[in-house]
Amino acid sequence: MPPLNFNAIRAAHKRIRAYIHRTPVMTSSRLNEASPATASLFFKCENFQKIGAFKARGATNAVFSLDDATARRGVATHSSGNHGAAVARAARLRGVPAHIVMPSNSAKVKIRAIEGYGAQLVFCEPTENAREVACAEVIKKTGATLIHSFENEHVIAGQGTAAVELLEDVPELDVIICPVGGGGLLSGTAIAAKSMRPQIKVIAVEPANADDAAQSFRAGRRLVTEKKFTIADGLRTNVGERTFPIIRRYVDDIVTVSEQAIVSAMRTIWETMKTIIEPSAAVPYAAILENKIDVNGKRAGMILTGGNVDLDALPW
Amino acid sequence: MPPLNFNAIRAAHKRIRAYIHRTPVMTSSRLNEASPATASLFFKCENFQKIGAFKARGATNAVFSLDDATARRGVATHSSGNHGAAVARAARLRGVPAHIVMPSNSAKVKIRAIEGYGAQLVFCEPTENAREVACAEVIKKTGATLIHSFENEHVIAGQGTAAVELLEDVPELDVIICPVGGGGLLSGTAIAAKSMRPQIKVIAVEPANADDAAQSFRAGRRLVTEKKFTIADGLRTNVGERTFPIIRRYVDDIVTVSEQAIVSAMRTIWETMKTIIEPSAAVPYAAILENKIDVNGKRAGMILTGGNVDLDALPW
Repeated sequence: MPPLNFNAIRAAHKRIRAYIHRTPVMTSSRLNEASPATASLFFKCENFQKIGAFKARGATNAVFSLDDATARRGVATHSSGNHGAAVARAARLRGVPAHIVMPSNSAKVKIRAIEGYGAQLVFCEPTENAREVACAEVIKKTGATLIHSFENEHVIAGQGTAAVELLEDVPELDVIICPVGGGGLLSGTAIAAKSMRPQIKVIAVEPANADDAAQSFRAGRRLVTEKKFTIADGLRTNVGERTFPIIRRYVDDIVTVSEQAIVSAMRTIWETMKTIIEPSAAVPYAAILENKIDVNGKRAGMILTGGNVDLDALPW
Repeated sequence: MPPLNFNAIRAAHKRIRAYIHRTPVMTSSRLNEASPATASLFFKCENFQKIGAFKARGATNAVFSLDDATARRGVATHSSGNHGAAVARAARLRGVPAHIVMPSNSAKVKIRAIEGYGAQLVFCEPTENAREVACAEVIKKTGATLIHSFENEHVIAGQGTAAVELLEDVPELDVIICPVGGGGLLSGTAIAAKSMRPQIKVIAVEPANADDAAQSFRAGRRLVTEKKFTIADGLRTNVGERTFPIIRRYVDDIVTVSEQAIVSAMRTIWETMKTIIEPSAAVPYAAILENKIDVNGKRAGMILTGGNVDLDALPW
């Protein structure tokens, strides 16, 4: 793996450009007025990205970074959904096999999407341990390469390209607000943002019910904490061993939000912006609703990370 | 009123430009592949328009076309929602009073939107007759000017500006597919489309449960037909006396779609494009799903007319 810096993110952007959407940055005067603080909000709509989430960026970069001989043996990953779809799609684009390990309780819309890309699906119990065991077995059997959803520099570099585009479109942002689960998006975003605009603040947001990154950030070392249920299922993961040092170095703060605020933020964005986002994508705006971040008078950018929602199981 | 031609639409566009969004035209490779026919589909996202629907265009043009003395006496309309919000917003922008007559069973999200623009709300029974009576009373009392939602040349000209932008962005469309209720959007769209690109086909789509426009089109005269329930509440209205002659002259065909197809089209667009549209906006794509229009090998443009949906009352 190359050392992860802004050059790697630039290279990733060039590598994946033909395979991803340059997604729009949307604004809403009604949302600017409705927010507790007077702020100018800019939403990078990765819910309109290929596979419906930013994960298309990192997975595509990782799969297309493999040499031909390695790629031919296939790729594998374990994912609650979006990263799995992203790896499946990238593998199809490269013409190599993909093995996707998914928890058996994954949303139907996510399962259908992965099947649609022609990947091999392997179901397992919905625990992190069961996923890793099932994935290791697949790799042993097939010789496929693991494309981890965040413990992988190529994946992190790819995720950072969303912030590159956001700052190209809105160069004078004061702050970027980013959700954190495993920390892949946050790491890539922080490196890109601080490289392109050193004075920018990078604030991460995490559900209070899965606040290991916030606790680890305060402690200065990676803590594995007990998790309660959070509707933001994409953010249940513990922050990674490779992502945490990047986060410590580049991120200014990590705040937490309540489940209620996440649902409220999600619904407000649906109603006001007419755009479908999944609960994890609502977490940054939830922090504004709960006054956890001072955005008063500022230009705040947020990545709407994805829009894959089971329309038969909405939280209202 | 000036005679309604393409110059009136161009003038409307100039008049309203500062007050409306130039909405994006979206495409979806997944939707192109998923549709029964092989077609390139282009969606003009008027669900992202001010007030969440194309109606902002016509109402703004009509309110800003009034002379100062007339405007000062205020404006009034009866509307199931979007047109009411559009008139309320236009009146606030011009700084004049607005009186909006609404059926008592209107969606909450629409009522809140109109209240937010500071308009006077007048509730009435949910029949066309009750609306007209209540609106006439308000006008008699206040001296306000009626801004009818489609029987008004300035409104029609304003609605036509959406097709102007669509054809500016995608000049080589083969067909424009447009929903029809009262016929305001359809009339403006047809004049604009045939003026900018004479060889284009303009096809209108109507719920089979409210098919007066289709029946009238075949009969060659305006029929007032019995209506069954349709989820596409914006399209329940009878086609207008002023719009029907325009439709006869410029529209190539009117087809109908089932309620099931409307819901299915709506859900498919939500899931695939991550964009929230109301049932009326799903009607053109429903016609593709039901093979009512031959779009095979063609570039087909559709206006996603609005996105104001009560999230507590979804049809699935």
